Amino acid sequence: MFDMIAFDADDTLWQNESLYSATQQRLAHLLAPYVDGVDVPARLYETETRNIPYFGYGIKSFTLSMIETAITLTEGRVTNADIRQIITFAKEMIDTPTQLLDGVADVVAQVAATHTLMLITKGDLLDQQRKLERSGLAEYFAHIEIVADKTEETYRKILAHYKVDAARFLMVGNSLKSDVLPVVAIGGHAVYVPHAFTWEHERVDPAAMQHARYFELAHIDELPALVEKLTAK
Amino acid sequence: MFDMIAFDADDTLWQNESLYSATQQRLAHLLAPYVDGVDVPARLYETETRNIPYFGYGIKSFTLSMIETAITLTEGRVTNADIRQIITFAKEMIDTPTQLLDGVADVVAQVAATHTLMLITKGDLLDQQRKLERSGLAEYFAHIEIVADKTEETYRKILAHYKVDAARFLMVGNSLKSDVLPVVAIGGHAVYVPHAFTWEHERVDPAAMQHARYFELAHIDELPALVEKLTAK
Repeated sequence: MFDMIAFDADDTLWQNESLYSATQQRLAHLLAPYVDGVDVPARLYETETRNIPYFGYGIKSFTLSMIETAITLTEGRVTNADIRQIITFAKEMIDTPTQLLDGVADVVAQVAATHTLMLITKGDLLDQQRKLERSGLAEYFAHIEIVADKTEETYRKILAHYKVDAARFLMVGNSLKSDVLPVVAIGGHAVYVPHAFTWEHERVDPAAMQHARYFELAHIDELPALVEKLTAK
Repeated sequence: MFDMIAFDADDTLWQNESLYSATQQRLAHLLAPYVDGVDVPARLYETETRNIPYFGYGIKSFTLSMIETAITLTEGRVTNADIRQIITFAKEMIDTPTQLLDGVADVVAQVAATHTLMLITKGDLLDQQRKLERSGLAEYFAHIEIVADKTEETYRKILAHYKVDAARFLMVGNSLKSDVLPVVAIGGHAVYVPHAFTWEHERVDPAAMQHARYFELAHIDELPALVEKLTAK
């Protein structure tokens, strides 16, 4: 039934958001002597959102936003040593080993035995390639697509490129907005596997989710059984 | 003769290095009140080189290196306002219109009329996509590959992916190291079009360039005639 099964990467295959959260906490701790009673992560999130059109996603973008936020919140008093420390946070994030989510290694190996797999991920090219190499999963993915955004247009282009019919395409991911809705909208199938750090249900119209080509799993280890069921139809 | 003709982007199709050089000069000017007789661009280049394994190429990487260099050269005295100014330099670089090199628009249109074109470029995903969109050339390129590095392995993977025989592949670019040597090494053809800001001749063994599948043009507008000549063989 499926000519191609694609996986999102961050927080679908491996931990990602937790690394950003931990670094936000380090920033809050670093700025604590300057600011009192300020919600540093919330203010950082505002800067990040404002900077996305310029810098996009990924650790470098996050770091430039951390520096901007530190300057703004301290009203220009943050020391050079502390700004240098923020750059060190970035290098330490980049050096962090890729931590696979529970069950992922088995699931990917199982599904790869019967299907062609693709990785479709947003973010920084170099950083995503590095994470994939370190994950031990690279050999299972026939194709890797690192994209600037995940819209209907993005998926349409990828499917056209690989000559895959949307009806025979399945996308697996933890984001309703990026991995599920655009895929279902262009006629593909999508499996939503929520991640502890993802709270998107509220932001998506439930009516949009009443769809025969949409599936939700509590855990990724239920994926091989779902694929088998759908394929046996 | 060619199933695919690929172009490098930065300083082959459009100005790039000049934008970085101009920003280096802005940084030197910004730091002049702090440091005297220091070769700021040279010191920045050292930081950039050291940071490539972490941050790769592109404007964000360059900006993080500018901030690090400013902190180091001023021995921690650079003001927050000046660091914020460096981040503004980055946003202004990103906002700069894509400036095509002389003759490029015509050459690309001409070659696209008879061949399938691909763009193969290093750098930041979002930034390269933005430059291509603004260039007015996007319609001519059937395929875009934004890669973290341009090695023999990179080209081998791309050709395998598109099922193109190396002998029927031509790469056009301004870098001997990235656009020419690895392509010729795997059996492809390469055209070297030097750019005013590229000084690589010295760093490549001339013996490596004695090759039947290597061509050098003084200007990209000579490309259509070369392609025609090779195709007529």
